[in-house]
Amino acid sequence: MTGPIVVINPNSNVMVTEGLDAVLELFRLPGGPVIECLTLAGGPFGIESQLDSDSVILPLAQLIESRRDAGAFVIACYSDPGIDTCRSVTRRPVFGIQESGVLSAMARADQFGVLAITEGSIARHRRFMARMGVLGRLAGEIALNISVAESARGDDAFAKLVEVGQELKTRGAGVVILGCAGMARHRAGLETELGVPVIDPTQAAVAMAMGTLLAG
Amino acid sequence: MTGPIVVINPNSNVMVTEGLDAVLELFRLPGGPVIECLTLAGGPFGIESQLDSDSVILPLAQLIESRRDAGAFVIACYSDPGIDTCRSVTRRPVFGIQESGVLSAMARADQFGVLAITEGSIARHRRFMARMGVLGRLAGEIALNISVAESARGDDAFAKLVEVGQELKTRGAGVVILGCAGMARHRAGLETELGVPVIDPTQAAVAMAMGTLLAG
Amino acid sequence: MTGPIVVINPNSNVMVTEGLDAVLELFRLPGGPVIECLTLAGGPFGIESQLDSDSVILPLAQLIESRRDAGAFVIACYSDPGIDTCRSVTRRPVFGIQESGVLSAMARADQFGVLAITEGSIARHRRFMARMGVLGRLAGEIALNISVAESARGDDAFAKLVEVGQELKTRGAGVVILGCAGMARHRAGLETELGVPVIDPTQAAVAMAMGTLLAG
Amino acid sequence: MTGPIVVINPNSNVMVTEGLDAVLELFRLPGGPVIECLTLAGGPFGIESQLDSDSVILPLAQLIESRRDAGAFVIACYSDPGIDTCRSVTRRPVFGIQESGVLSAMARADQFGVLAITEGSIARHRRFMARMGVLGRLAGEIALNISVAESARGDDAFAKLVEVGQELKTRGAGVVILGCAGMARHRAGLETELGVPVIDPTQAAVAMAMGTLLAG
Amino acid sequence: MTGPIVVINPNSNVMVTEGLDAVLELFRLPGGPVIECLTLAGGPFGIESQLDSDSVILPLAQLIESRRDAGAFVIACYSDPGIDTCRSVTRRPVFGIQESGVLSAMARADQFGVLAITEGSIARHRRFMARMGVLGRLAGEIALNISVAESARGDDAFAKLVEVGQELKTRGAGVVILGCAGMARHRAGLETELGVPVIDPTQAAVAMAMGTLLAG
Amino acid sequence: MTGPIVVINPNSNVMVTEGLDAVLELFRLPGGPVIECLTLAGGPFGIESQLDSDSVILPLAQLIESRRDAGAFVIACYSDPGIDTCRSVTRRPVFGIQESGVLSAMARADQFGVLAITEGSIARHRRFMARMGVLGRLAGEIALNISVAESARGDDAFAKLVEVGQELKTRGAGVVILGCAGMARHRAGLETELGVPVIDPTQAAVAMAMGTLLAG
Repeated sequence: MTGPIVVINPNSNVMVTEGLDAVLELFRLPGGPVIECLTLAGGPFGIESQLDSDSVILPLAQLIESRRDAGAFVIACYSDPGIDTCRSVTRRPVFGIQESGVLSAMARADQFGVLAITEGSIARHRRFMARMGVLGRLAGEIALNISVAESARGDDAFAKLVEVGQELKTRGAGVVILGCAGMARHRAGLETELGVPVIDPTQAAVAMAMGTLLAG
Repeated sequence: MTGPIVVINPNSNVMVTEGLDAVLELFRLPGGPVIECLTLAGGPFGIESQLDSDSVILPLAQLIESRRDAGAFVIACYSDPGIDTCRSVTRRPVFGIQESGVLSAMARADQFGVLAITEGSIARHRRFMARMGVLGRLAGEIALNISVAESARGDDAFAKLVEVGQELKTRGAGVVILGCAGMARHRAGLETELGVPVIDPTQAAVAMAMGTLLAG
Repeated sequence: MTGPIVVINPNSNVMVTEGLDAVLELFRLPGGPVIECLTLAGGPFGIESQLDSDSVILPLAQLIESRRDAGAFVIACYSDPGIDTCRSVTRRPVFGIQESGVLSAMARADQFGVLAITEGSIARHRRFMARMGVLGRLAGEIALNISVAESARGDDAFAKLVEVGQELKTRGAGVVILGCAGMARHRAGLETELGVPVIDPTQAAVAMAMGTLLAG
Repeated sequence: MTGPIVVINPNSNVMVTEGLDAVLELFRLPGGPVIECLTLAGGPFGIESQLDSDSVILPLAQLIESRRDAGAFVIACYSDPGIDTCRSVTRRPVFGIQESGVLSAMARADQFGVLAITEGSIARHRRFMARMGVLGRLAGEIALNISVAESARGDDAFAKLVEVGQELKTRGAGVVILGCAGMARHRAGLETELGVPVIDPTQAAVAMAMGTLLAG
Repeated sequence: MTGPIVVINPNSNVMVTEGLDAVLELFRLPGGPVIECLTLAGGPFGIESQLDSDSVILPLAQLIESRRDAGAFVIACYSDPGIDTCRSVTRRPVFGIQESGVLSAMARADQFGVLAITEGSIARHRRFMARMGVLGRLAGEIALNISVAESARGDDAFAKLVEVGQELKTRGAGVVILGCAGMARHRAGLETELGVPVIDPTQAAVAMAMGTLLAG
Repeated sequence: MTGPIVVINPNSNVMVTEGLDAVLELFRLPGGPVIECLTLAGGPFGIESQLDSDSVILPLAQLIESRRDAGAFVIACYSDPGIDTCRSVTRRPVFGIQESGVLSAMARADQFGVLAITEGSIARHRRFMARMGVLGRLAGEIALNISVAESARGDDAFAKLVEVGQELKTRGAGVVILGCAGMARHRAGLETELGVPVIDPTQAAVAMAMGTLLAG
């Protein structure tokens, strides 16, 4: 068996890392890949701007380069910061959660929708989808306009997720992606409420990483 | 835990099903989803034409409808026969191996190449990639022009795979997809030889299916 | 002179076939191709789902294969069921009415709109237009949300057609396609009302078929 | 019955008009639309440059405006000169032969090839196909590099057509368009030789025009 | 130093030419290219239709051919009339203002919006952007529905510009193009009001022309 | 008059900066914008990898943020490092030379070609063009496979440029972009040799920057 799947939370908010760790618990199977969740030391507390996103590239690359024991890497931020540099410093596969989330959504419906946390992140995500060549499959991306902290919390956030998810369905989305690493706890409930698949992008990336490690 | 991943070989060649079963052995983890490989009774011995491909749609749909215990389905033929109808008769996720293979390849490199078995299948695959909206990421699809039987066998097939894989790299492919359910035994060797990731599409589909079942 | 244009209604509703026959009467010219309208025995009464659409592929292919006397074929259902398989079993040209309708509309205006009968058919049509690579020319497709039977009837249906047609114009459509084989009787009236060309897709397909047969 | 289909040869070479007239003879059916072939007085002897093409726009528009009796118009030059202006000066449909040829080819195969007369016309055609949004379906356009006069003549031209047609097939073309109004006499022979459909664009445009007039 | 930048107003409204001349005053630098603004003798008073646009092609080409002393040309009408023919009759660079405006906007934001004068020009502009292959970057084009004369005047026009500019921003535009040669005097004020870059297309074209002349 | 155009060479090779300075001399006009060329302290000696490219983002952003007097910025590296972050830290326009070079080329011909220094940079450039949505206009990008140092030197480099430029023309390029900040001295000679426009991307960016500053 090759090394662990190293999931890196590029912000320095340890609670986000713990949330990822909890969400990925079900992916830890006896005999399967070890899944390790790390907090990037020195990252910003949250990645909310392009500068935040680019500021973590070098530390991410260093961390990845230092983990020669790893089997695969997941960068657990929906901006996929440094994905190209990270890939260039290791021979192991590196998965970004936006890329993985979008690709996994494309296996579930013709048009996908994205729930963004903030208005400001949409242009950044859109540039990445343009580069992927998949804008033709995007039904829409809509911001919740709540804070990352609020997004992880309870009922108010959920009601907002349902409201925006319904609007995405109206625009044609047959599947909805949670556009942030920290909304996973709402996935199953939202899927039930909306009646269409809801993708947690970190889980999507870890599933792809498992696929490469189990392939033999 | 939800039900098994039901992998359906839509042709009636039991040896192909046994090959799939062997390839997927490493994806069977204690506590993880059960992976069941079935042969579609009454399918053609091989799916080599559009008619072969369309001829299995109704039996596939019936089989899928009858397996209400399943957690997810994988249609293990690179033509993704009946993918839309299969999806319409179940609420469980259905993965086609072409779609899953292409999407998984898109997480590994900007441009992907496809190794087809026969010349005749390329137009069929191309129509499906057009529908997916991903032709802009295709570096090329080249036929081995060997029989399905030959493709599963030994060294001659492998030499041919390496030769065509090299040509795909020359055309810009940073990742190569095995364009048939029956070439999986060559995956690891070909990856080593070519120095770029090689995707077995059935494994890619099963990894995506596992992802949906483990998501909780 | 080569053989007849065989127009196949793939549902078993004989009244639809008779409607097609009436609509095509004006295309029957002395010395021109014979136009024959057939009902596919054993088809569903209406094609309203992907399963309905796929269920007629094999019977269609058999019928087409058996008519070696034909000069060309038209599959008169807007889902273009089995178009690829039908093309693979004959050397004669096979025209699908969605494909022909869309292509003919593209000769009339930069952006086209489609009047669908039901909401449920839009995703299916969209997949086909994606495969054609023409989604960039689509102004919109909107469902009338009436039954096929209602669509063929009188004034209420017409008022609804005008309303939805106006909305398509508002979205940029310079030409409107009737997205069903059974709305032809409204074509001329709707064209007058909307002030833009209205395409009956069966007529469009038959015109293309005539073109191939008259080419000599 | 509405008025005639007015086919306008925008160059002043009467022999080209006579050639068109002959090619369209088979489309003249009792009770069907009258097909009239005109030479544009004052056009250049051949349309070989962008300037030639644009120089005929105003005379074409004038001619079209003056023919209020017409049922439809066909501009019989593969550069589709003045297509937008011509459409703006009449309420009757106006068909360009490049546009009609390409759209008709798209009903016959996934990828089409074009046989151009001269190297210099390819960029002009490509701009038009870009505007149509169909470059993704183009397998290739290759110049014969013979004169318009030679293209209409005998065996040498035919051998060249076959050679370039074969090359287009090698590049993936499943249908071939004659990229000039003057090559129609080779259509049937070339189709037999290549084993794929060959489209004469003037015939394609006239078939579409007939379709609009017969629709009722 | 090569010859002047010849800016041609293809309509015969001398006041428009004088407006261009004023707007370009700031681009006239000692030692830099001379910028000359001409009125096309015999052009229509305004270019409001496709026919108007095409009617100036030959005179434009003649004027350009006659100015062998020029260093570069700018066609100062947002329909970019005759751009291809103009390029074919000179070895000097020819810039269209729509093309230059759109390309310059693409250097400022991911999505651009266009303020058109009249509804009727939008389809013409859209065809040109389709040909450029940039429709994927267009957030929207909206008509002011005022006359060219009004657009050049005072406060009412400005209020309308702001209103439509805000709507373009709502649709995602991060930069706004003035879709007419005559609105330049509002550029700076509108930029301040909207808070996003506003592009005057004539200035954009002249900047590109200067770039080619200064390159050495 | 607003502040200077600050052209930043993000590598620490002062000779490259001096080369830029020389190339831009002709753009310095009395009364026009001041053009200042800076070397980014602490950048790598050359930007040859994705890591090199990403390593300069934060220092670039800092430098830009500190120059509040500037009128516009040009990032003079063909990888356009940090373009998004740089734009987010200033209200002044920021031009990347790849983006500006490509957009300027699109004003000169339908298809452009790119002369890259090294094979390894092509994928990076391609991702950027994908994001721009302009891959459909790319005729090809071919590597000279010489060092940056060699590219700036004499006759051997020039012969290689001509050879690769000819190949780009063969693939359809009607304009050629020098895909590196350091090849400008060959621009004019190569343009003469190839007979098509050759774009130096730094000059293209500076021309666009001048355009924004002169607009008033």
